Amino acid sequence: MNYSENIYKQLKEAITDHERILIELEDLHSYSFDASFGSYLPEFVVQVKSAEEVSKVMKIANKEKIPVTPRGNASSLSGGPLPVKGGIVLDVSLWNDELLIDPDDMIAIVSPGVITARIDEAANLYGLMYAPDPSSSNISTIAGNLAENSGGPRGLKYGVTKDYVLGLEVVTPEGQIIRTGGRTVKNVTGYDLTKLIVGSEGTLGVITQAILRLVPKPPSSKTLMTIFDDLVRSGEAISKVLSSGIIPSKIELMDQASIIAVEEYQPLGLPVDAEAILLIELDGHPAAIADEIVKVKEIMDMKGARNTVIAESDAEATELWKARKLVSPAIVRTKPTKISEDATVPRSKIPEFFKRLKEIKIKYGVTLVVFGHAGDGNLHPNIICDKREKEEMIRVEQAVSEIFTAAIELGGTLSGEHGIGTMKASFMELELGEHGVDMMKRIKQAWDPNMIMNPGKIFPEKGQKLVLSE
Amino acid sequence: MNYSENIYKQLKEAITDHERILIELEDLHSYSFDASFGSYLPEFVVQVKSAEEVSKVMKIANKEKIPVTPRGNASSLSGGPLPVKGGIVLDVSLWNDELLIDPDDMIAIVSPGVITARIDEAANLYGLMYAPDPSSSNISTIAGNLAENSGGPRGLKYGVTKDYVLGLEVVTPEGQIIRTGGRTVKNVTGYDLTKLIVGSEGTLGVITQAILRLVPKPPSSKTLMTIFDDLVRSGEAISKVLSSGIIPSKIELMDQASIIAVEEYQPLGLPVDAEAILLIELDGHPAAIADEIVKVKEIMDMKGARNTVIAESDAEATELWKARKLVSPAIVRTKPTKISEDATVPRSKIPEFFKRLKEIKIKYGVTLVVFGHAGDGNLHPNIICDKREKEEMIRVEQAVSEIFTAAIELGGTLSGEHGIGTMKASFMELELGEHGVDMMKRIKQAWDPNMIMNPGKIFPEKGQKLVLSE
Repeated sequence: MNYSENIYKQLKEAITDHERILIELEDLHSYSFDASFGSYLPEFVVQVKSAEEVSKVMKIANKEKIPVTPRGNASSLSGGPLPVKGGIVLDVSLWNDELLIDPDDMIAIVSPGVITARIDEAANLYGLMYAPDPSSSNISTIAGNLAENSGGPRGLKYGVTKDYVLGLEVVTPEGQIIRTGGRTVKNVTGYDLTKLIVGSEGTLGVITQAILRLVPKPPSSKTLMTIFDDLVRSGEAISKVLSSGIIPSKIELMDQASIIAVEEYQPLGLPVDAEAILLIELDGHPAAIADEIVKVKEIMDMKGARNTVIAESDAEATELWKARKLVSPAIVRTKPTKISEDATVPRSKIPEFFKRLKEIKIKYGVTLVVFGHAGDGNLHPNIICDKREKEEMIRVEQAVSEIFTAAIELGGTLSGEHGIGTMKASFMELELGEHGVDMMKRIKQAWDPNMIMNPGKIFPEKGQKLVLSE
Repeated sequence: MNYSENIYKQLKEAITDHERILIELEDLHSYSFDASFGSYLPEFVVQVKSAEEVSKVMKIANKEKIPVTPRGNASSLSGGPLPVKGGIVLDVSLWNDELLIDPDDMIAIVSPGVITARIDEAANLYGLMYAPDPSSSNISTIAGNLAENSGGPRGLKYGVTKDYVLGLEVVTPEGQIIRTGGRTVKNVTGYDLTKLIVGSEGTLGVITQAILRLVPKPPSSKTLMTIFDDLVRSGEAISKVLSSGIIPSKIELMDQASIIAVEEYQPLGLPVDAEAILLIELDGHPAAIADEIVKVKEIMDMKGARNTVIAESDAEATELWKARKLVSPAIVRTKPTKISEDATVPRSKIPEFFKRLKEIKIKYGVTLVVFGHAGDGNLHPNIICDKREKEEMIRVEQAVSEIFTAAIELGGTLSGEHGIGTMKASFMELELGEHGVDMMKRIKQAWDPNMIMNPGKIFPEKGQKLVLSE
């Protein structure tokens, strides 16, 4: 037996429904991984269902100095829910019973285990929308989105999760239940703990409730697909659209490797000789977008697009988006391991970033596929590899390092929407400098003096390096 | 002589241009007040012009444990730039030489002393806009806006200052120069220090540069003025507009006391018997807003507006807005002291908040005028009084206390856009609870162990009460 009887006894006192405390190895295995890399066994899983339960568990963990890792549905691409130091996994996925829409205040109040897409669906009934749309929204819990500050394609126009959080209920590492923010859009009462906790990857506390801002659902949308022989020209076309005063709801890019992968996986008639496909969606007032979509097409023509198609119906739009949706399943067909990054650069640096990515691909002989949210510079360079091939993985490690270095040299950031987690911790000082990381650590230490909340994330350990070769 | 020779000597070593160190009483007096309440003399004023100078001053202050209060143009309504514990005022208002617009990345890079309105003007040359529009934008410095997280009428559609800050350069209380965030719209690399510092009222460090997000300038706008006999109906009309999927750029409200004050000050033909005037501005695509303004008028008619006028030209729109712009000068005509609050409630609670304000006005016999940003629940209850009248000011203190209590009871917050400063510190626990305030204090202590950065703000001292009667 791998767990402590003393802790187990205390947990059973705290959580009266003992079926929600898991200690069997087969159960623990289910909580050892996420959608990123690596596998770590916890000693206990506690399936919490109230702030009081979380508070009790945190008080036990703080007293006994045991690591606690909060977890939703573990769709994280950066290792957020991995119990890298063992201890207790706090599973919030069963705690999905609260999903209130207040149409007058245009807010949603949700418990942490609610699936992201359900919030948008519930809001839709009132003509409202929950704007953040991470690709995993049909699987991910809102608490996971909050912890990682998830983005999504609509981020270009609507921003990320953080932009939609008005208030939180949080259990501190020492087990106190606090409230941050509230139900109002404007709030400058003291430090912004809400926006500090969103994106802190479960290292500052456990989110037990969120008050989310909703916006009116746009009455209509239009989709356009355009093909470029030259990747750099596609980047210029994006800049031209945005500087013309049009803010599309989405601008998604597929590079040539993505196009080829999709065509090999499921032939859609995409041009495998093209360097880039852009998918652009406008939303808003029908009269406005009918005018704007024509302007966008004109810009594409002017910038030398080979071919541009405007979807004439929602069905046609869905058909066009199919290509983008197939990228992820298509690219993992050849090799089993996908290292999915989200290094982000200023928009004007996208062409230069692509050039650097091409050099890195050749230098290390890795399979690099690039797609993502080109409108806000948040691309997803994906390396397709096989984690059982040690020699290959060493090349992948080096390539990933150089991708991060390139992004930072171009004025960008390690992560646009996935978070730091375990994957990028060793690169933090590269971006933030010693003092920048130190000011973050001071907050961590002040809030969590026993360093029990999701240890091993964000902050690098002394001499820590990225290791993908097991 | 009120100052320490030892400190003066060190400051002169740090700032080679000694004319930027002020110690004469007449100069110090100019730095003793802001647009709120109270007057406090500093010992030194240092007019800084670089991060290196700020770093040197902070290192001296930290070593000698002297308070430092950063200051822009002191248009604060909550006491942010008041040197309540004396010490050094760091004046950034001369440091206005950097104002770069990068139209490709849609960002502005500014030094702290740049006047807010200049940023928008510079962005306009590229068809872009700096969205936050605090009423003091022609006077206020961007650093002051950043410190207080200023709002403004456009907040309804565009949000507040914080929503437009991508990155900062900050000098920590111990004198280290750090960078937070960057040039990208998406960034989840570690804790969000940018959004922690914005709105922290100069208590966590000195902002020495900001990278601001710009948006396309909307191609057109439309203004509508509507008159309601019944304040509650005007609130219902606002809710109906917002739930119909239309987000105006501004919804401003004037209550009857504001209407009367304006008419007495400068007759515009406003109906002094009406309970509310709403001014609504739409911006965006001309076809969209031409359609939407008609829908807004229909909603006003349906909700029983006495009269609704749509401005047919920009000149007519300016004329309609004149009423709102005259409120502030009009209301201070009768008495010299204006206690301007910004207690904010959830939108649906506006009618109830108005009822409570009316009761408070009668109970304490104070002159209460209410106007402001009704669309987001951020109203400005202003009490017009005379600070030399001790008995009156005690009633004002009690009325202000009850206004805060009412806002919090209705699920609102002490401050929507002015900040806590000295004025609201004693009410912090009422809203946040003991543990909520404690978690904020921990950050303050971890960043500023000698508690030298803008002391006396945000956090109440033991037993502190609001005192307006001098």
